[in-house]
Amino acid sequence: MLHVNENYSKIKPTYLFAEIAHRVAAHQKAHPDAKVIRLGIGDVTEPLAPSVIAAMHKAVDDEAGKGDFHGYGPEQGYAFLREKIAQVDFQDRGIDISADEILVSDGAKCDCGNIQELFGADVKIAVGDPVYPVYVDTNVMAGRHDIQLLPCTAENSFVPGPEGCTADIVYLCYPNNPTGAIATKAQLQAWVDWANAKKALILFDAAYEAFIRNPEIPHSIYECKGAKTCAIEIRSFSKTAGFTGIRCGYTVVPNGLVAYTADGSEVPLRPMWMRRQTTKFNGASYITQRGAEAIYSPEGQRECRDIIDFYLGNAKLMKDALKSLGYTVTGGDNSPYLWVNVKGDSWAFFDKLLKEANVVTTPGAGFGKAGEGYIRISAFNSRANVLEAIERLKKVL
Amino acid sequence: MLHVNENYSKIKPTYLFAEIAHRVAAHQKAHPDAKVIRLGIGDVTEPLAPSVIAAMHKAVDDEAGKGDFHGYGPEQGYAFLREKIAQVDFQDRGIDISADEILVSDGAKCDCGNIQELFGADVKIAVGDPVYPVYVDTNVMAGRHDIQLLPCTAENSFVPGPEGCTADIVYLCYPNNPTGAIATKAQLQAWVDWANAKKALILFDAAYEAFIRNPEIPHSIYECKGAKTCAIEIRSFSKTAGFTGIRCGYTVVPNGLVAYTADGSEVPLRPMWMRRQTTKFNGASYITQRGAEAIYSPEGQRECRDIIDFYLGNAKLMKDALKSLGYTVTGGDNSPYLWVNVKGDSWAFFDKLLKEANVVTTPGAGFGKAGEGYIRISAFNSRANVLEAIERLKKVL
Repeated sequence: MLHVNENYSKIKPTYLFAEIAHRVAAHQKAHPDAKVIRLGIGDVTEPLAPSVIAAMHKAVDDEAGKGDFHGYGPEQGYAFLREKIAQVDFQDRGIDISADEILVSDGAKCDCGNIQELFGADVKIAVGDPVYPVYVDTNVMAGRHDIQLLPCTAENSFVPGPEGCTADIVYLCYPNNPTGAIATKAQLQAWVDWANAKKALILFDAAYEAFIRNPEIPHSIYECKGAKTCAIEIRSFSKTAGFTGIRCGYTVVPNGLVAYTADGSEVPLRPMWMRRQTTKFNGASYITQRGAEAIYSPEGQRECRDIIDFYLGNAKLMKDALKSLGYTVTGGDNSPYLWVNVKGDSWAFFDKLLKEANVVTTPGAGFGKAGEGYIRISAFNSRANVLEAIERLKKVL
Repeated sequence: MLHVNENYSKIKPTYLFAEIAHRVAAHQKAHPDAKVIRLGIGDVTEPLAPSVIAAMHKAVDDEAGKGDFHGYGPEQGYAFLREKIAQVDFQDRGIDISADEILVSDGAKCDCGNIQELFGADVKIAVGDPVYPVYVDTNVMAGRHDIQLLPCTAENSFVPGPEGCTADIVYLCYPNNPTGAIATKAQLQAWVDWANAKKALILFDAAYEAFIRNPEIPHSIYECKGAKTCAIEIRSFSKTAGFTGIRCGYTVVPNGLVAYTADGSEVPLRPMWMRRQTTKFNGASYITQRGAEAIYSPEGQRECRDIIDFYLGNAKLMKDALKSLGYTVTGGDNSPYLWVNVKGDSWAFFDKLLKEANVVTTPGAGFGKAGEGYIRISAFNSRANVLEAIERLKKVL
C-alpha cells in the first residue's frame, strides 16, 4: 500500500496570507476605485543594484559561449562566492569562519526547511511565538509535533531567554521576523552558553542582518564566544540585496559542530549537510552566484547599503508617525519590520485600516498566539506610498 | 540530547566520481603532457540557445527596474512558464495535462530527492540496477533501507518489467541513465497497469526525453492509458536546453493522484507536493524561468533541437566506431549515453582507456552490481574531442 506521510495532515493550515488576500479582494470589489496601499508585504520593491545587474549580464554572456560556459557547478557553491562571503561577512568583522564552512543555496527558506533533516525524529524543538511559520511546519512534516513556544512579549522586549527552554534545537531569528526586535550580544551569549552546556543546537536565522545600523548589535551568532560549537547560521541575499526573485542564500555549518548518535558518539554536522545538499540539490544558478559575488565588491556593498538605508528611511517615517499617534512600536531601527501594539484585536485593527484607509497590514495573531494585539508593518515600499499611507493613518487613527 | 539522523550513516558512500577523479589526477601527474579527453561526464558542453540568452538578458533588465521588477514569485512557478510547458510538452502531443498539475523547480535532482517526503517511512521502494544514485540515497536518508533492485541486463534489453516487483513505489528513468536504454510504450504500459492494479506509484524520470527521435517511443509516462492515476513525472531542462548551470526542471503531479492513510483513506498528492514546495522552497529564479519560457518559442524549440542533434551526432560517431571495433553498444540513438559491454572488468577497462588512450569513461560497476562489465560513454563533448577520442580508441582496442 502506498502509505502517505500522515504528518502532513498535522500541519496547521496557514490561512494568514490567504485570509488577507480574501479580505483585500472583497474590499476592492466593494470599492473598485480605492487605491489600496500594501504595507503587509515582506517582499522588496527596489530594483537590484547596478553592480549585481552588470555581473548577471556578464554571466548570461558566459552561458552564451562568449565567456567561460558553466554547466553543473559545485553543489556547495562556487569558491569565488564562498571566499568573498567568508572574507566580508565574517573575517573582516573578526569572526573566524572559513569558505569551506559555507554552503551556498537557492535561498534561506530552503535551508531553514531542510536543515532539520540532519537530526533524529525525537529531537525537541523550540521556537519563538510569534514565529516565521517555516520553522514549525517543516518540523511537523517530519513528525516532530511537540514544539515548545517561547513567548516574545513586551515584557521580555520580544527576546526570550533560555531559562525554561527544554529543547534540543532552538530557532532564533534576529533582527526578528515578525517583531522587528533585535537581540543584544549579551542576550545571544546567554543562548550560546545554554546550548553549549546542554549540548543543544541554535539555528540562527540572520536573514535581516543587513538592516542593523547600531554597532553594538551582533550581525552573526558567531560574534558570541563558543558559538561555533553550538550554532548553525542561515543567511539570505533576499533582503540584503533584493534577491527575493533571484534566489540565493547560504548556511554556515562550522567545522567541529556535532550531533550525537543514540549511544552518545559525536557525528560532525558539516559533512552531513554537505551530503544532504550534494544528494538532493544541485547548486544555485551560476548567473545568480555571479550576481551574489558582485554584492561583495566595494561598489556592490555601497549600492546595497544605500537601498537598505532607503527602506530604513521608510521605516523611520512610519515609526515616527505611529508614535506621534500614541502607539507603542518595536522594530524599524535595525529591521525592516515594525511591530505595532494596536491596543486591541489584531484582525479588527487590520479591518479598520483596510476599510477606512485602504491600507493593508499583517495581523500579528497570524504569526502565533503571542502576536495577538499587534500588527506587522513592512518598510518595503516606495517613498510615495509610505508618505501617502501615513497621511491616511493620521486621518483614521 | 541532539540526536543525529542515523540513517545518514547507512548511505553507501558514492566513491565513483571521486575515485575517477583520483585515478585521472594520478595519471595526469605521471604524464603531465597527456591531453586527456573526458567522455565520462554527464554535463553539457554547448552554450545556451540564443533565444534563451536573449530572454535572460531581458529578465536581468527587468530586475534592474527597466521592465517589470519581480520579487518573490509563485512557489509553484510562474504561470507564463507552466502554461507553455502544459501546451508544448503535453497538450500538443495529445496528452491531457494542465498547467495547474505542473510545479516548476530548480532542477529534477531536487524533485527526485524531495518527492519521497510525501510518503510513509514504511513504503517499499524499487529501482533499476544500475541506477542513478539519488533514488536510493534519498530513501536511505529517510529510513527506507530495504530497497528492491530490478536488474537491467542485456537479457531484458535493460528494461525490467513489473513481474516480481513487490514495491509500493518504483523509480523508472527512460531514456535511461546510465544505460541509454529506451522503453517502448508497451513496456511502460505494463508498468502503469501493474501500478494501478496494485495501488502503487511510478516516479517517472524523463530528464532525457528530448533525445528521443524514434516517433514510436513515448516521451511521457502519460502517453500510457491510466498513468494519471499512478504516476508522477519529473522533467529537467538540464539536458533539453543545456540548463545544468541554470537550474530548472518541473514535476507533474496529476489531479486525482492519491496515496493512502493507514486506515485506507485517499489523500490527494498534488496539494501535498504544493504544500511541501510552498513550505520548503521559494521558486526558481525569475531570470531562469524567463529563460525556460524561451525554450518553448518556435525559435527556442528549433535551437534546442539542433543542439541535441549535435550531441546525438557525437553519439552516433562513437557508437559506430565501437561497433566496428566489435563491441556491443546500447543507447546513443535516442539518448546521450552509450552503454558499452567491455567483455571484462569495468575498472580494468577504464584504466586501460585512461592509460593507453588518455580517455576518461565511467565504469558501469559504479552505478550498481548489474553495471559490472560495462562502461558509460557520454555524448556531451565537442566534435573535435569525439573524433580524436575515436582515433585513439581505434589504436588501443
